[in-house]
Amino acid sequence: MDGKTITENSLALIVYKDRKYLKKIELGKAFHGKGGVLPFSSIMGSPYGVRCGDYEVFQPTLEDLIMYGIRRETQIIFPKDAAFICLKLNISPGSRMIEVGTGSGAMTLYFSRVVGPSGCVVSIEKEERHHKNATRNIERISEWPNMNLLNQDVSEYEDTPFDAAFIDVREPWLHIEKMHSLLDPGRVLGSILPTANQVSDMLRAMQPRFGDIEVIEILFRKYKPVVERLRPEDRMVGHTGYLIFGRKLQIPEE
Amino acid sequence: MDGKTITENSLALIVYKDRKYLKKIELGKAFHGKGGVLPFSSIMGSPYGVRCGDYEVFQPTLEDLIMYGIRRETQIIFPKDAAFICLKLNISPGSRMIEVGTGSGAMTLYFSRVVGPSGCVVSIEKEERHHKNATRNIERISEWPNMNLLNQDVSEYEDTPFDAAFIDVREPWLHIEKMHSLLDPGRVLGSILPTANQVSDMLRAMQPRFGDIEVIEILFRKYKPVVERLRPEDRMVGHTGYLIFGRKLQIPEE
Amino acid sequence: MDGKTITENSLALIVYKDRKYLKKIELGKAFHGKGGVLPFSSIMGSPYGVRCGDYEVFQPTLEDLIMYGIRRETQIIFPKDAAFICLKLNISPGSRMIEVGTGSGAMTLYFSRVVGPSGCVVSIEKEERHHKNATRNIERISEWPNMNLLNQDVSEYEDTPFDAAFIDVREPWLHIEKMHSLLDPGRVLGSILPTANQVSDMLRAMQPRFGDIEVIEILFRKYKPVVERLRPEDRMVGHTGYLIFGRKLQIPEE
Amino acid sequence: MDGKTITENSLALIVYKDRKYLKKIELGKAFHGKGGVLPFSSIMGSPYGVRCGDYEVFQPTLEDLIMYGIRRETQIIFPKDAAFICLKLNISPGSRMIEVGTGSGAMTLYFSRVVGPSGCVVSIEKEERHHKNATRNIERISEWPNMNLLNQDVSEYEDTPFDAAFIDVREPWLHIEKMHSLLDPGRVLGSILPTANQVSDMLRAMQPRFGDIEVIEILFRKYKPVVERLRPEDRMVGHTGYLIFGRKLQIPEE
Repeated sequence: MDGKTITENSLALIVYKDRKYLKKIELGKAFHGKGGVLPFSSIMGSPYGVRCGDYEVFQPTLEDLIMYGIRRETQIIFPKDAAFICLKLNISPGSRMIEVGTGSGAMTLYFSRVVGPSGCVVSIEKEERHHKNATRNIERISEWPNMNLLNQDVSEYEDTPFDAAFIDVREPWLHIEKMHSLLDPGRVLGSILPTANQVSDMLRAMQPRFGDIEVIEILFRKYKPVVERLRPEDRMVGHTGYLIFGRKLQIPEE
Repeated sequence: MDGKTITENSLALIVYKDRKYLKKIELGKAFHGKGGVLPFSSIMGSPYGVRCGDYEVFQPTLEDLIMYGIRRETQIIFPKDAAFICLKLNISPGSRMIEVGTGSGAMTLYFSRVVGPSGCVVSIEKEERHHKNATRNIERISEWPNMNLLNQDVSEYEDTPFDAAFIDVREPWLHIEKMHSLLDPGRVLGSILPTANQVSDMLRAMQPRFGDIEVIEILFRKYKPVVERLRPEDRMVGHTGYLIFGRKLQIPEE
Repeated sequence: MDGKTITENSLALIVYKDRKYLKKIELGKAFHGKGGVLPFSSIMGSPYGVRCGDYEVFQPTLEDLIMYGIRRETQIIFPKDAAFICLKLNISPGSRMIEVGTGSGAMTLYFSRVVGPSGCVVSIEKEERHHKNATRNIERISEWPNMNLLNQDVSEYEDTPFDAAFIDVREPWLHIEKMHSLLDPGRVLGSILPTANQVSDMLRAMQPRFGDIEVIEILFRKYKPVVERLRPEDRMVGHTGYLIFGRKLQIPEE
Repeated sequence: MDGKTITENSLALIVYKDRKYLKKIELGKAFHGKGGVLPFSSIMGSPYGVRCGDYEVFQPTLEDLIMYGIRRETQIIFPKDAAFICLKLNISPGSRMIEVGTGSGAMTLYFSRVVGPSGCVVSIEKEERHHKNATRNIERISEWPNMNLLNQDVSEYEDTPFDAAFIDVREPWLHIEKMHSLLDPGRVLGSILPTANQVSDMLRAMQPRFGDIEVIEILFRKYKPVVERLRPEDRMVGHTGYLIFGRKLQIPEE
């Protein structure tokens, strides 16, 4: 994925005005879109960033691959949230982290990128269907073989403590004790929750065992990039989820 | 910085209600705050995450170190923006990137973390005063020796192309051509700009040479983490900057 | 429109889940929607607020009439903005105000309501097509005969000074001098502008003649009203316009 | 309050840059502010909108009077919310409305303005201290004698039905039945609540008796009005309250 040239069988991001398409560049094929036909023969061998009529062709970023290349069986975490979650979890190249609720694997891929080839992401998913879908998504997109996808209940999972933990399940408060036991001292647990009621439930469960608890919303506003008519877009995403973070406290009796 | 135990001369984050303090844990000293006196002797040797009266003591995250441990001579980039910038620039462990406008070094440190020990960040600052301040900040906080801080004008800088570029200066449009020449095909250039007028100027300069241009604002809203009275905080940051991103296009005559 | 009972030929708001329909209650007719058939005979004579299957039937508010009962040839001003504009213009029952750019007449109707039967709204529209459409809209919806719709250029309009003025045209800065001359001392001029560039142009034109200038955005966020799953809606309106207000200054040479 | 000239003993709004002061113009006195001394003799008799050094002097709007002229013993409702509440309650000149929780009287004054001299606002406050403070505030600022302030518990209040109702107390759900009985068919009940938990409680109480329920947040973002450097202000109000509205349904057994 690090090449500078559009090659056969690579994935390419085709941009037409404000639309984006992720396509496999196959010999003898073409892209048919609102900007007309784009025969792949005309761009194969060109460097990325080539313009062809009204189309622009780029090497997809991880964001592109996740937004346009993942089969979604669950609501995926948006880039605006994913980036901020990684920062708050304080993970970096070499970190070892655990995720509960693989879902479609989008967040797993962001974690994989951040911890890099020397790090490790254990991701646990109870639903076999989601586990299988995520496994397929990750096989196609992963940058490094640093992910360990497990199809089990987290309550049965045992391991040495992790550098950070993230839960994305409907009732994350059920796993607070477990997550506390799976974290190194002072490390961060994060979660994303769609409703305010869930936030209250999660706060109640976290408070005895986690400190410095923060609840945050990230709003993302896109502008029309027109020099003489700069303005926000008419519609925006109004809500994805509330983010909640806390740091593991030592519990006296433990 | 990876220990689990509070040791002498380490930096610690002391949390008291919604206030946070970054302190060096020195023998024979104490922290005097609204929650009373916290003698460091009482916590030295304890694991992070220890509670002591109304205080909680944690190992600082990179965010803590930047927000509370940097001497600011310039407006620093906020975590909400920093995290999203790294995602859009599509950098990862091993990436090689260039930053124009080191400022106080906050963004440089975020980039350093993302590209990791196998990556590299070249950061260029024209003002000697800022360069020196950033150098001091980074010496104190850096995780890896992967940053190269230069005190010069970017117009005189020559190098092989980079994986990503970021500009944080008052008139970034002056450096568009230079940045274009310093990027690999299709790679992302980002910038942050406080005013709408600057965004228009930047768009005008970028449009012939960069494609898939996006202008984005990230809003950050914090909630009071109270189970029975969940509500956003009364005041919030209303604006930091407009983020602008584009990908390098091939220019026919080149 | 002030009755408490659903009568023949009145307009009714039919609510089905989060959808709303404005319908004329005609003898022998029915509403056919996602909740099935609602024969008007079954509700005629009932008080408003009646439930019929999954439908609820209410007397339309002014907001309903404007949002669902106006034929739009132009972008109409949203309720969130309309309400705030009236407050900033400081109009009240009995006020006399002038609007430049009738558009589809939505804002004119809000003004009409606020100034009431003892007040007066002069609304000027250059485009004959918009003027005619607005006239038809207002005939159908108006509460009081306090609106004077004119199809002319504001530059040719002369009158005694008004209590407040509002401009909603593409280049409002062309009319600043005129508006200044048509306002009583210290009174408020308002405008709504979709782009940041227009705001800069408008500020430049207003600054010598108007004081206490404010530029404001109103964001509107709707929640799903579910007791156990309270959360913002997934999508929201991201932008309608920037509001700008200023108060007439005395100009020395006048 | 409708004059065009600054007169003795009138209230004036003095604007200096982005600061505003509400002052009584008294003979022989002066305003001492950051822009120097402003002797009232130099502006008495001038029309509003006069500039004097860096000061501008205007006739206060209702918003100015409420924001700068009210003694606050309770959190007052902000203009952004007040304007929208009036619109959703669908009140207009001549309406008769009831408010539960007078607080400091700010919202009462907005209602008074909207319903005008031919309308009426009954406002009920249980706490004698708040009732007295609101009475004093309203005596000083009221435009029309259309407000009836009562110091009692709403549960003991009886009257013919109103056109609209608003509750601003800590536990508004306790008064849902009462409010239902005090509204005309199909009319709107509104409330403002600071926490998400309160919204859930209020929804639970409203749902059997009110339809078309909406929960809304209004965010207000102010810009620095500088032609060449247009940008939002650094800090903004992050939260005032959640607004909730519903329309009275007919209850079968009633």
